[in-house]
Amino acid sequence: MKPLETVDYSVLPGVNEPADLRRLTIAELNTLAGEIRSLIINTVASNGGHLASSLGVVELTLALHYVFNTPQDKLIWDVGHQSYAHKIVTGRREQFATLRQRGGLSGFPRREESSYDAFNVGHSGTSIAAAAAFAEAQFLNSENNKVIAVIGDGSMTTGMAFEGLNWSGDRGNKDLIIVLNDNEMSISPNVGAMSSYLNRVMTGDRVTKFKSELKLFLKSIPNIGEQIFKFSKQIEESVKTFVVPGALFEELGFTYVGPLEGHRLNNLIRNFENVKKLRGPVLVHVITQKGRGYKFAEDNSPTYHGIAPFNVETGLTIPSSSSAPSYTDIFGQTMMELAETDSRIVAITAAMCEGTGLDKFREQFPGRLFDVGIAEQFAVTMGAGLAIRGLKPVVAIYSTFLQRAYDQILHDVCLQNLPVVFAVDRAGIVGEDGATHQGLFDLSYLRNLPRLIMMAPKDENELRHMLKTAIGLGTPVSIRYPRGKGMGVALDEDLLTLPVGRGEVLREGSDLAIIAVGCTVYPALAAARRLADEGIGVKVINARFIKPLDSELILRTAADIGKILTVEENVLDGGFGSAILELLAQNGVTGVRVERLGIRDQFVEHAKQSELRSIYGLDEEGIFRAAKEILA
Amino acid sequence: MKPLETVDYSVLPGVNEPADLRRLTIAELNTLAGEIRSLIINTVASNGGHLASSLGVVELTLALHYVFNTPQDKLIWDVGHQSYAHKIVTGRREQFATLRQRGGLSGFPRREESSYDAFNVGHSGTSIAAAAAFAEAQFLNSENNKVIAVIGDGSMTTGMAFEGLNWSGDRGNKDLIIVLNDNEMSISPNVGAMSSYLNRVMTGDRVTKFKSELKLFLKSIPNIGEQIFKFSKQIEESVKTFVVPGALFEELGFTYVGPLEGHRLNNLIRNFENVKKLRGPVLVHVITQKGRGYKFAEDNSPTYHGIAPFNVETGLTIPSSSSAPSYTDIFGQTMMELAETDSRIVAITAAMCEGTGLDKFREQFPGRLFDVGIAEQFAVTMGAGLAIRGLKPVVAIYSTFLQRAYDQILHDVCLQNLPVVFAVDRAGIVGEDGATHQGLFDLSYLRNLPRLIMMAPKDENELRHMLKTAIGLGTPVSIRYPRGKGMGVALDEDLLTLPVGRGEVLREGSDLAIIAVGCTVYPALAAARRLADEGIGVKVINARFIKPLDSELILRTAADIGKILTVEENVLDGGFGSAILELLAQNGVTGVRVERLGIRDQFVEHAKQSELRSIYGLDEEGIFRAAKEILA
Repeated sequence: MKPLETVDYSVLPGVNEPADLRRLTIAELNTLAGEIRSLIINTVASNGGHLASSLGVVELTLALHYVFNTPQDKLIWDVGHQSYAHKIVTGRREQFATLRQRGGLSGFPRREESSYDAFNVGHSGTSIAAAAAFAEAQFLNSENNKVIAVIGDGSMTTGMAFEGLNWSGDRGNKDLIIVLNDNEMSISPNVGAMSSYLNRVMTGDRVTKFKSELKLFLKSIPNIGEQIFKFSKQIEESVKTFVVPGALFEELGFTYVGPLEGHRLNNLIRNFENVKKLRGPVLVHVITQKGRGYKFAEDNSPTYHGIAPFNVETGLTIPSSSSAPSYTDIFGQTMMELAETDSRIVAITAAMCEGTGLDKFREQFPGRLFDVGIAEQFAVTMGAGLAIRGLKPVVAIYSTFLQRAYDQILHDVCLQNLPVVFAVDRAGIVGEDGATHQGLFDLSYLRNLPRLIMMAPKDENELRHMLKTAIGLGTPVSIRYPRGKGMGVALDEDLLTLPVGRGEVLREGSDLAIIAVGCTVYPALAAARRLADEGIGVKVINARFIKPLDSELILRTAADIGKILTVEENVLDGGFGSAILELLAQNGVTGVRVERLGIRDQFVEHAKQSELRSIYGLDEEGIFRAAKEILA
Repeated sequence: MKPLETVDYSVLPGVNEPADLRRLTIAELNTLAGEIRSLIINTVASNGGHLASSLGVVELTLALHYVFNTPQDKLIWDVGHQSYAHKIVTGRREQFATLRQRGGLSGFPRREESSYDAFNVGHSGTSIAAAAAFAEAQFLNSENNKVIAVIGDGSMTTGMAFEGLNWSGDRGNKDLIIVLNDNEMSISPNVGAMSSYLNRVMTGDRVTKFKSELKLFLKSIPNIGEQIFKFSKQIEESVKTFVVPGALFEELGFTYVGPLEGHRLNNLIRNFENVKKLRGPVLVHVITQKGRGYKFAEDNSPTYHGIAPFNVETGLTIPSSSSAPSYTDIFGQTMMELAETDSRIVAITAAMCEGTGLDKFREQFPGRLFDVGIAEQFAVTMGAGLAIRGLKPVVAIYSTFLQRAYDQILHDVCLQNLPVVFAVDRAGIVGEDGATHQGLFDLSYLRNLPRLIMMAPKDENELRHMLKTAIGLGTPVSIRYPRGKGMGVALDEDLLTLPVGRGEVLREGSDLAIIAVGCTVYPALAAARRLADEGIGVKVINARFIKPLDSELILRTAADIGKILTVEENVLDGGFGSAILELLAQNGVTGVRVERLGIRDQFVEHAKQSELRSIYGLDEEGIFRAAKEILA
């Protein structure tokens, strides 16, 4: 695979919108597919991004735009990380170099970017609901365009995808087409009965078995002729809905088409032309290969699912400037250490075994790692069930995806006061994945839950102690920690149990108190040192606990200093700073000035973590400025 | 059906635990079933509760406890509103008269109440996840009891139930039994492909068709004899998994048993004895009738799903002392008025058409009402999709159930800034349904969402104006309103558009300002009048908007009066009062005393709404006391 500069793009430059595609021959489309792959590989090598899934659907994307009259026909991508080819052929080829960069193209479909993006997305399983709604709206609006949802088999394991299937299959919308993009992977290999089912469908062994038995029988009886053939036809008809590959989908009300080979363009186009004429709902089952066309990604698609910038020739990611381990690595490593000495510790992940750093844990303790697929609700309630039966479950889910399980945390874990530990990875600003993926809400949506103890470590070493502490508490606990590298601090060998609800004073001062939480503690310290250079004395508190707060320390600090700056990577509404305000009010403290730094009631777009921290004033400089303002 | 006092309980008094059941004959068990029904009907007639679903599973409950070795074998009820018979036979017969009353038995399974209650519940679809976890824990703990989840077909439409099926079917836990209690109803009649599928299974027409075709064929061929029979056996075997009624569940990895008649005890017991010997996972499909044994409930199970106290003889509910319409009624009626003049208004409910007051809307505008079944996630994202296509969806869901869709509100509605209106019914204290159903979190979990406008009316007339206002705003909006009767105020004919972010001063005063939200406004006013009698001047503000706040009014009030009491029926963490604190802090206001009345970081148990409001100080008396304390 050659780098971008040296590839000859012969067809791609002429494709500015799907209408241009529709004028191409199959041969040209195949050439185009290769060129699109080259552009995707080179761009992701430079910008980072979701490589494997986008490479898997290049032909599928071309076939859909070729056959359907987009944007009048609506194309809805599930999750949306596979939409790069779609972006390239829908007028965004020249902007594609800006993918995931500040001010550039989003890594996910965005209605703000293009009329070809029908529905914004980033989380799994929403496409069928959106498509079902579009189909209903068409009926009410007396329109009759096709509505096509493209959903991966990994997304099919999430509950709301099933809610969508269940509704659509029964409702019978004539314009609805669901394309099941089956690559046998979500991010990690798939789990679940649906996945097993799809495997069986693909191998088609049941159909084969039935047919061979029928043949054998026919051979065994001489001189029946016409009659027996008629019967075999009749039997075949009567059991057809059961032995066709898509029986399960047929049972749910869909016309099933497939499985189709997803990298043969002529085949795809011919089949979609037929599908277009069918009265829906239709489910088209397409088999694709994740990472298709880039050997490293074909061989190891989990690594190339979401990847940092890499060298195209070697497939190796470009080493970051920091040699510190990531929070995720430290979490995984500490889980292994703790599990070694306590056989009751188990781990749960929702299709993010690698992403949450639990892959080594799985190797070491295969029976104690539950990967439930993209099914966060199930993951959390499973944690509750395991805790009741005496185990110590740690549920590791990214902040943004844990949003899916808010009710389960409340209703199944906290209401029963069960010792489930939530390892909330990717909390705070996550960067290039943008608005759908920022972990900026967990402090608010978790803080209202009674009985939950909430922590956030200032660095990776503290994460270790917090994990140890959390598992020992016997109550629901959350620990949030950020995406990316740790602070590079030394790691204590011995794991400590931290006192619940106790913060840590890192620096004394009498002009201002900064109470920081999680990854904002070090920048707060740095800002305090700069302020000290200007003769301003700043007390810096590492909160450690969001709930319960260290009320004694904070009230004393408030009384002593009278000026407080809180810092958090979270929305301000109901967040950490709000907890400080509540504490003061509850204790009748007035006259204390509290400024809260965080995200002020808005969604945060994509850019580098460092850029976003700078924009939103959550880095050393921003904290420094905010402190000066209070003191002004 | 005779009232409680006059029924002869012959068998029931001897049943103190399931072991007692196991000594009874089938005839005695049948007598017992009748006696349990009588006790349930008479108790619910007096206390209110979930009648129809509990009556439907009396025999099923007896059969399960008869066959399985509870509590060693674990019995997990989905939703749990059908657990009355279970409670009666597991040592709680004598307490049963206290059902749903303060300090009495909960209307739902509670581990705190009994070792026979394996998992606390109140929301739909959690049982399979819990059972799957128990089964995994058994393996890790080297135990081998059976784990039985009992789930209604209505609950099967919720996504997390499917997540559970998908996991369990594939995982193959040998001890897992899922009992599908199929009554063709969730609360309203069921929707969705799964429901249609179950219907087909029940009528069994496919099996019949296949068999009759085979017979016909055999008759049509003379002199084949032995050979053809052998073939027919062979064919039957090879297609068996497809033509047995439970093909869909078999495809998902379950051994399917059923459908069983759910009111024939001998039949149930015999089958469960067999099931007990099978290696799981097994899905047992049981057909029951909601309301069984009480004619009024059999004929109209939605009315008798959750019902207020009623007269056993007439089936009529006992009229409440207030003649005011409920908030729910007014919502439904106003929806009809608005929809009359705007054809783009559509309504979405998640199996709660009657509960949310949309039944008349459905009659009037059948094509514009979407009942998606118990599938809150789908409901919300469907709203997003409809809004994109130009419709004006109003999604009516109870506060407690909307928790299930937090991520969809964030990711699909707010992130896309779509004009979806959330009618958040049963917000605040709901009363007898208890901890799993209180609507005490929505102000907190919604308030952190950017772009969402949040309102709460002080009375049913204001609800009308708010609904009109919300639908016209073109942004995401939530309106929360309480369970139960309105204030009985006059209803304005003309619906007004309220200015966004503007509160309403209901009373002037200079000693204290009470800022109340929603249903706490009238009690706040009443408290203010009592305070006035003592010469204390209280300004009372009806907030109307939780987000955005009326910052100008509140800041001015804070500056003028310096003492504020906020009142809300919500947890205090991140709630309405917290928003007031944030507003003051953000504007650099110090020196103002703010006390917040609400629920302080705890779950609220079952009791009458009025009792709970009194306990938590959220009624006139509580507000009066809190005001006096601030002023002291």
